[in-house]
Formats: sequence, structure tokens, C-alpha cells
Amino acid sequence: MSAGGKGNAAYGRKPFKRSRSHFTDRITADGRDGWPVEPGRYRLVVSRACPWASRALVSRRLLGLENALSLAVVDPIQDDRSWRFTLDPDGRDPVLGIRFLSEAYDRRETGYPGGVSVPAIVDVPSGVLVTNDFQQITLDFATEWTALHRPGAPDLYPQALRDEIDTVMEEVYEDVNNGVYRAGFATSQEEYEAACAGVFRRLELLADRLAGQRYLVGDTITEADIRLFTTLVRFDAVYHGHFKCNRWKLTENPVLWAYARDLYQTPGFGDTVDFDHIKRHYYQVHTGINPTGIVPLGPDLSGWLTPHHREKLGGRPFGDGTPPGPVPPGEEVPARGRP
Amino acid sequence: MSAGGKGNAAYGRKPFKRSRSHFTDRITADGRDGWPVEPGRYRLVVSRACPWASRALVSRRLLGLENALSLAVVDPIQDDRSWRFTLDPDGRDPVLGIRFLSEAYDRRETGYPGGVSVPAIVDVPSGVLVTNDFQQITLDFATEWTALHRPGAPDLYPQALRDEIDTVMEEVYEDVNNGVYRAGFATSQEEYEAACAGVFRRLELLADRLAGQRYLVGDTITEADIRLFTTLVRFDAVYHGHFKCNRWKLTENPVLWAYARDLYQTPGFGDTVDFDHIKRHYYQVHTGINPTGIVPLGPDLSGWLTPHHREKLGGRPFGDGTPPGPVPPGEEVPARGRP
Repeated sequence: MSAGGKGNAAYGRKPFKRSRSHFTDRITADGRDGWPVEPGRYRLVVSRACPWASRALVSRRLLGLENALSLAVVDPIQDDRSWRFTLDPDGRDPVLGIRFLSEAYDRRETGYPGGVSVPAIVDVPSGVLVTNDFQQITLDFATEWTALHRPGAPDLYPQALRDEIDTVMEEVYEDVNNGVYRAGFATSQEEYEAACAGVFRRLELLADRLAGQRYLVGDTITEADIRLFTTLVRFDAVYHGHFKCNRWKLTENPVLWAYARDLYQTPGFGDTVDFDHIKRHYYQVHTGINPTGIVPLGPDLSGWLTPHHREKLGGRPFGDGTPPGPVPPGEEVPARGRP
Repeated sequence: MSAGGKGNAAYGRKPFKRSRSHFTDRITADGRDGWPVEPGRYRLVVSRACPWASRALVSRRLLGLENALSLAVVDPIQDDRSWRFTLDPDGRDPVLGIRFLSEAYDRRETGYPGGVSVPAIVDVPSGVLVTNDFQQITLDFATEWTALHRPGAPDLYPQALRDEIDTVMEEVYEDVNNGVYRAGFATSQEEYEAACAGVFRRLELLADRLAGQRYLVGDTITEADIRLFTTLVRFDAVYHGHFKCNRWKLTENPVLWAYARDLYQTPGFGDTVDFDHIKRHYYQVHTGINPTGIVPLGPDLSGWLTPHHREKLGGRPFGDGTPPGPVPPGEEVPARGRP
């Protein structure tokens, strides 16, 4: 995400408030917003550093949308012009031909003042931003893009469980996904303490819930697990120190640590995670809370690959479906980003 | 310590270098520097936040020097005038009658430019600073103040083991005691990485050493244990996050964590530790690396009181001596500073 230009420029001396997504057009099966689901038409732009964008990365892999929806990965370090394609040859996205994601925003609305954020989906023929609505994008992947799902794709948002999934996701969003940011960008001790206490109170409730069941809702992986995972996988690497969510490390909570490892080791989760991008983004971009820009050597990441034993709890990760195949060539996370 | 005024003012854009202690007069049995050991004559000024001063706190307790050498505890938060007696009634040390430790420095040398540091020993009759030589003060407690030791005081610097103790202490000083500071105040990625790697390399060697023996040198507590303890007890509370020494937490290293708990639970060690002073000092004073001044809620400290089982390794904590008695009235660490 990181709407607000330089990433930390938006976090001034007032309580941290996440800006509402601005472009909320939806890409649907019936194309009612003018954007019908079509193979090859759209490009998903993400930062592997960003937890909100990483939801879309995981979802796209689990559902097998890689061939239908191409992927652009931005440099984890924004400059004044926000997210950049500096990882690509000549610093340009090879499909969209642009150097900055802001160019797709400009084509959508000239002089848009709302900041540039990921995930973003761009219409390739016109180069226009379609949506940066991080809360809706993955739900639409699960429910609107079904015609393009791979055979054996799981149902990540099953009709019968949506109320429960929505409730869990709302709690996780407020206290965990966004709670760590409210703690990290707090500008007063009171604001920080309320947010940090909320993070751990919720994590402890979630640990209770997950002690006896493999996944958050039902007995299969759902959207709720994806959204909790993208925060947990960043917890010890950045939220614990950089955002001061340090009551305990994820590795110190046996239930959540095993749950996070289980998902990490499931195809479609861990193979999207780049710890190098994550650490460099948070520590180098947020100079308001880390003025030196120095990136810590820790934590030791080797534990992510150790046995989790969660299969003893039963559960069917992909329901009646199957795991996704290997990561498409060119999308592999470099060795320096892996444990 | 924190020579250099405001604590972080000294840490500019050049590699962190600890300033040499300036006033190196020694208080000795024979009084050869003009400062003979005498009961009631001197006052020890410490910050409970400071690891260098805390050596003197532990040593004084273990040796039973509390009646011979009175104690002043400064506010953990320095201002422009450095260490302050703002915890005392009317903001004045009740014995020295001064508001700032710098006043004792000024009486020693007018306009002294070297910064004000703790531990400091002040001559009560004249109000003059005698020494702030943190490396020598505790050695002199052990070897020069013997006439004033309590009955049953341990030998913290036994003659036969001095070479080995000195070697261990030098490695611990360079890589651990001071290594965490070099990591935390590094101004480049390279400088940080070298320091942080050095911290953990040394800690791993120390863990190997301590896996089979209860104390660092010989089978009793020595000065070497005091010096390692004062860094370990701060590790998870401040060095792990604030100084980015985050490869692992102390609680994740079974040997060192048990060793540190063993000492913490030994009379004279844990009863000198104020986690509240430690956390507030580091996070509020070093605004160069923590601009918000926000103090984290974590870590959970309750583990410090759990069984360590190190007594199985044998060892005689106090040799032929005995543990110190209870903390003198008025010197107890407040509840908010304890686990």
C-alpha cells in the first residue's frame, strides 16, 4: 500500500489513519463497471514488501491466475515519485512501458492527489489504472474470476461461510493488519500503547482459536487465512522491532508460529514472500521512525522451514481441490529473499 | 555512562567511538592518589539505566559496601545538562546538595568539556568528583575496599584467575558490552553489520563456554560475570530492538538465557535492575535513533523469575563466602521496574 507518496511522508504528527482506497471500480464476470474479466487484459502491480499487495500475490497463486493476469513487481524502495519499476531493464515495466506506477494513476485521473498504492490493477491496452481497492481485489479474484481459475483451484470465499469469514477478517484487519501500523506510526505513547495492546490481545484470541483447528474458518484455507498470514510473516522481520510490537516474537507463540509456518510451507504462500524486500522497504523508507535507514541483520529466518505438525489437526488445505503448481518462470523470489 | 551531554548528542555522522574516561584517580587502601578508602566519605552516583554504572551497583551489593559507600540514583532521562537528581525531593541529591551531577564535575575541573558520565564517585566533604573510570571502579571495590567488605563477601577478582578474567572481560567488552552500542549508533550499514555480527559471534562463543560451567571463570561469580550480566539483562529490553541486535532474543538462546536468569535470581544482581529506568532511558534519550521517544510495551519480562536449573552444573556462587543480605531500605527497585 503506502498511499501518500514517499511512504512515511503521510505519517506526520497526527494519529495514523489509513487513507481510503480511491479507485473502487471492480473487474467482474459481467463487466458492469466496464471492466470485464478477460485473460491477458490486466496487469497486477505489487510490491512484495507490502502486506496488502501480498494478499493478491497469494490469492493469484492459489487460484492459478498467473497466466490470465500478468504480474509486475516494483522496487521495494519508493522515492519521491512513489513506487518505481527500477527492478526491470531500463527501469520500465516491460508490458506497460512506464517507469512509475503513478503514470497509470495519471492516465486514470490527472493530478490525482490521493497517493499511489499497491496492489494496483492496470488495464494493459489503455495503460489506465482500474482499481487499487485492496480489500475488494482478492474477493473478486475468488468470486468473479472463477472462469479463469485453474482446475482444482480452492474456494477461498465459500458462500456458506462468508458471514464468519467477514467477521474474522474485520477483527484481524482492525487489530492486526492495521493495528501494527497504528502502533508503528503512533505519535504519542498513549496511541502506541492502545494499538500495541490491541495487537497482542487479538493475537492471543486468534491463538486460542487456532489451537484446535488448522485454519481460521471451516477446515480449508480461506481468504481469512491469507489476510492473517501476510501480517504474521512480517511480524518478527519488521513489526516486532521497527513497529515496536514486541511483547513477544511470533516464534515465541507456539500456536501462531506453527500456523504461520504451515501456511508458509503451503505452495502459493511462502513462494510469494521476499524477506529482503520486506526488510529493506520498512527500514529504509520509514525514515521518520528509522532515521539511519539501517536494515537489521536479524531475525534468523531458518525456522520458517521447520516441521509444524499442524497436519495432525486434520483440515483439508485445498478442500476438494489441489495445491497450485510451481511458481511460473521469472516470478521466483531470489535466494536473498528466502530463509 | 553517556558521556557527551545529552546522551545521543555525541553520536553524529561519524562511527561511534566511546570516549575515554577522563578522571582516573583511584580510591585505594593506601590513598596514594589522595583518596583513601574510608567508610562514609564517598558517594556513588549511578543511573540504573546504564550498564556501566550497573556494574558498580552489583559489585557494591555483592561485597556489602552499602553502609560504607552511600548511593545516589539519577533520573533515567537526561536533559541538556545531563544526569539530574530529579528523583529526589526538590530535585537535589540529599547528601551532595546538588541538582546536576555536572556540578561535582565542575568542582573538579571548571569548564570540563568531556561530558558527564556515570558511574561517578564523589568525595562528600568537598563535593568534588573523584573518578568516573568505569573500568577501574569495580576492580577497586573488589581489591582496595576489602577492609570495608561485609563478612562473607566473595572474592570477585581472585589473584590466581586474573589473567583469564582479564582476557574474558576484554572480549566481552569489545564485542558485547560496547559492541551493542557500536551496532545501535552505527551510521552506515557496513558499520552496523560488522558490529552486530560481532555481538552474536561472541555471544555464541560465550554460550559454548557456559554450556558446561556455571560461571565464566572458575566455579564462582567473578567480575567477568558482572560485566556480561549487565549487558544480557538489557538485551531483549533495549538492545534487541532499539540497537537492532536482533538475530535472536536472549530468551531464544537456552544457555545464555538460563545463565542470565541464574544471576538475576542471585541476591545482588536482579535486585539492582530497574527495567523501567532501562527502557525509558534508551528509548526516550536517543532521539537520533528513536525520534518519537515512544517506549515499547514489550518484552514480557515474567520469564526472568522462572527456574534456570543451572545449579545442576555445580559451582559455588560465593565461593567460601555467603550471599548478601536484603537490599537496604530506600534502595529497593520500585514495582514498575521489576518483572
